[in-house]
Amino acid sequence: MVIKEYVTYNQVHKLCQEAAPRILEDFQPQLMIAIGGGGYVPARILRSFLKKSGSPNIPIQAIGLSLYEELPSKHPSGSNTPGQVEAPGTKVTRTQWLDLTSLGEMENLVGKRILIVDEVDDTRTTLEYAVKELEKDVEAARQKLGAKGEKTVFSIFVLHNKNKEKKGLLPDDMLNDNRYLAARTVGDVWICYPWEATDIEEHDELARQQGSK
Amino acid sequence: MVIKEYVTYNQVHKLCQEAAPRILEDFQPQLMIAIGGGGYVPARILRSFLKKSGSPNIPIQAIGLSLYEELPSKHPSGSNTPGQVEAPGTKVTRTQWLDLTSLGEMENLVGKRILIVDEVDDTRTTLEYAVKELEKDVEAARQKLGAKGEKTVFSIFVLHNKNKEKKGLLPDDMLNDNRYLAARTVGDVWICYPWEATDIEEHDELARQQGSK
Repeated sequence: MVIKEYVTYNQVHKLCQEAAPRILEDFQPQLMIAIGGGGYVPARILRSFLKKSGSPNIPIQAIGLSLYEELPSKHPSGSNTPGQVEAPGTKVTRTQWLDLTSLGEMENLVGKRILIVDEVDDTRTTLEYAVKELEKDVEAARQKLGAKGEKTVFSIFVLHNKNKEKKGLLPDDMLNDNRYLAARTVGDVWICYPWEATDIEEHDELARQQGSK
Repeated sequence: MVIKEYVTYNQVHKLCQEAAPRILEDFQPQLMIAIGGGGYVPARILRSFLKKSGSPNIPIQAIGLSLYEELPSKHPSGSNTPGQVEAPGTKVTRTQWLDLTSLGEMENLVGKRILIVDEVDDTRTTLEYAVKELEKDVEAARQKLGAKGEKTVFSIFVLHNKNKEKKGLLPDDMLNDNRYLAARTVGDVWICYPWEATDIEEHDELARQQGSK
C-alpha cells in the first residue's frame, strides 16, 4: 500500500518561509528558475520571503518540464517481470525553456547565482535534466564571451526530497557545496499537494488527522 | 483609508474550482498563459480542475510582466497636486515571454484557444499589454502562413476584478463574446493574497474575521 502524505497550502507557505533565511544567506540567488507546474507555487511564495526591503523582487523565469516514464516493451525477452510497474528509462520533455529575448541573451546569466525551484525531488530525473541543460547553455554563453566570465552557480530548493534511490544525478560540487536544500526529507510516500486536491477541506482534514497521529 | 481584503489559499483554490466548469464549457482552452508572478498560483490550481480524465494536462506557458508606474515629474507646471499618489502613465516591462523553441514556432498558436490567467485585474494595464502583444505575435504568424489559419481566440481568467475606472482596454469582441471571467468582482480595495503574507496564520484569522462580519 502506498502511503499518502497530505500537505496543506499553509504548510507549503511555512516550508518556504522557514527555508528563506538559509537561501538568502547561503545561496544569495539573483534569479529563480521555477520548474512548472509544481515549482510555480513554491517559487511565488519564496519570492515574497526572499525580497529585501528596498530591493526589487528576485525575478522568476519559469521553465516547463514533463517527465514521461518510458513504458517497458512488453515481454522484452519473452519473460515479463510481474509487479514491474515502473520503467527504468525516463524521458524529459521541455514544454517551456528560458526566454532569452527578455533575459537579454544567455550571456547575462554568466557568473550569476541561480536558484532552481521545484516541489518534489522524487527520482531526481527532472532536476538532473534541468541542471545539466542549464549548465550547458550557460557554459556555451561563457565560452562565447571568451571563457572570461565567472562560472554560474546553481542551487536547488525543493519542498520535499524523497529518501529513495535516485535515477538522476546532480553535480558532485553542488552536493558537496551544500547547494541543495529540501525543506523536508520524507520516505518514498505519495505526497498530495493542495493544488491537486479536488476537495480542499477534506484534504486539510486528512492532513490534520495525519499531524495528530 | 484603504480597505484591505484578505484572501486565503483555500479561497483561491475554491475560486478556481468554481470557475473551471465555465472555463471548460465556454472557453475550452488548449493552452494557458500565466502572467507571473501573480498568475502562477491560480494557473497551477486551474490546471488540476481543467484536466479531463484520460486527457493530458492543458499546458501552461508562463510570461512575466512588471508594471512600473511612471512617477509624475515633480511640479510639472509649478503646482503639485496634494495627495496625488498614482501617476497616469504606466509602463509594462517583459521579464519573460513565450518560448518559441518549445512551442515549436508561433505558428502553432494560430487558431488555438488560449486562456490568459492572472490574479487581479486592477488598472487593466498589464492585461491590455498581454492581449495586444500576444494578438500581434499570433497575427504575424498567421500572416506568415498566408493568412490561411483561423484566428486565435484569447480569453481571460482572473481571481478578482476591481470595479474601477480602467486605464487599459481589452478588445471589444473579447468583452462582447464574454471571453472575460473574473471569479469575483470587488471594489477598489487592497487585496491581500496569501502568498504575500508574512504571517499566514494571522492572515487567515483576518480573513475569517472579515468573512463573519
